[in-house]
Amino acid sequence: MSSILPFPDGLAAQFEPYLPSSKANGLPSLTLTFATSLDSALSLGPGIQTQLSGPLTKAMTHHIRTFHSAILVGASTAISDDPGLNSRIQGAKRQPIPIVLDPNARWNITESSRVVQTAKQGKGRAPFILVNSKNIDDDVVVERRNMLQNYGGGYIGITVDDSGRFKWETILSILKQELGIESLMVEGGGNVINSLLEDEENKKLVDNVIVTIAPTWLGKGGVVVSPERKPNAKGEYTQPRLTNVKWIPMDEDVVLCGKLNASGTPHNNP
Amino acid sequence: MSSILPFPDGLAAQFEPYLPSSKANGLPSLTLTFATSLDSALSLGPGIQTQLSGPLTKAMTHHIRTFHSAILVGASTAISDDPGLNSRIQGAKRQPIPIVLDPNARWNITESSRVVQTAKQGKGRAPFILVNSKNIDDDVVVERRNMLQNYGGGYIGITVDDSGRFKWETILSILKQELGIESLMVEGGGNVINSLLEDEENKKLVDNVIVTIAPTWLGKGGVVVSPERKPNAKGEYTQPRLTNVKWIPMDEDVVLCGKLNASGTPHNNP
Repeated sequence: MSSILPFPDGLAAQFEPYLPSSKANGLPSLTLTFATSLDSALSLGPGIQTQLSGPLTKAMTHHIRTFHSAILVGASTAISDDPGLNSRIQGAKRQPIPIVLDPNARWNITESSRVVQTAKQGKGRAPFILVNSKNIDDDVVVERRNMLQNYGGGYIGITVDDSGRFKWETILSILKQELGIESLMVEGGGNVINSLLEDEENKKLVDNVIVTIAPTWLGKGGVVVSPERKPNAKGEYTQPRLTNVKWIPMDEDVVLCGKLNASGTPHNNP
Repeated sequence: MSSILPFPDGLAAQFEPYLPSSKANGLPSLTLTFATSLDSALSLGPGIQTQLSGPLTKAMTHHIRTFHSAILVGASTAISDDPGLNSRIQGAKRQPIPIVLDPNARWNITESSRVVQTAKQGKGRAPFILVNSKNIDDDVVVERRNMLQNYGGGYIGITVDDSGRFKWETILSILKQELGIESLMVEGGGNVINSLLEDEENKKLVDNVIVTIAPTWLGKGGVVVSPERKPNAKGEYTQPRLTNVKWIPMDEDVVLCGKLNASGTPHNNP
């Protein structure tokens, strides 16, 4: 898992139009990146890490990470995958800051968590964990925060909405304000990705989308990327569609790059 | 809908390794072909025809049809789409025989059904409809059969299994025996496609797979291609994976070609 990954320059050039650029609204540029099966599954089931794509698309992901100030995942992904959340690309010039959405402080991050180990070894940055501001002074949070602060990470309290979730616009403005983050790569898991695709307000925050697809079907019961059809005020639903599309075959997989077009043709939700 | 579709020779050449060839077991060569969204949906919901892919991949499908002796769809697709089931490719040398799986004789096919109109105009063949052999002498079936026989089509009775379905191996051997079919293109809908992907015995019958993917998410509630995870005798599940994979970008869509590998690495069903 700690090996250095090479990524050919010729392939790298193809991704340039989909790298972050500064935005008029002052919020960080948001890139949505994930890998699925043909039936849109991220994994065989909740908490089951599933190898889907090949070494070249993995190297691509690590290449793209170096162009972002931060990488974000949800708490469930952090708990099940114990991810490094760094870039292991050959000659990585900078490392993104790992961000974990954990409103209920579910993730028991310790000295031995891979992301902390990676930071201690100087191969990545220490994470910042976003927690419900009500939980920011809980004993477990204080203890973990003290540990993370030794390595330059920490906890940030954010208010949640009625359903106990953070608002994406709030996440982005806090990350910009508190950590100076200009570009954010959102990598998972299913709920985090779907929330960005299913809400009209959230779709507008997504700039670039990079999806790897592997030529297999994981079958019913997997964790799937498929947004809820949330109608707008007129009761219409607009299916998210990518524009400026580029499909890049890589070994057995394909990588889809595009811009998220939140202004598609709406139709009545059947 | 009745326009003639052009398909460039350069693109056509890429599909040659995935065209039917004769098989050692004497059964027709089976090609599975369909178009989905990124979340593996064929349509927004049951009975809702949904435009997913662009004109070039549509032309590709009509090109591939001319290499098959027959095209097969399920009754639900016939009822909801009223399809022509012919090839409208420029210079089509032969037309496939339309086959519809309709065990319960649900499809009220008439003189005005598009597939019959198409046959009357000499732009395609009359269909053969596979019905539960118990229903073969029902009044409605006899009436429809008489109509179809005027154009060279008809009904064929087949026994069903305990769940009221045809067995794929039986379908294939009957089509070979009764109609001399050497190659079959299976196009839909969801249940028909999933049944070929979810059963170890059925997977072995699939030779080539050609999937078009459009860069949009239809969202939860669509008719999806995602097989049930049917364990084998040892309780293991093998996810279907394609080999000899080729991804062919076409305008906004991508076309995935591959061979179905029924002998992947099994794992315990989570």
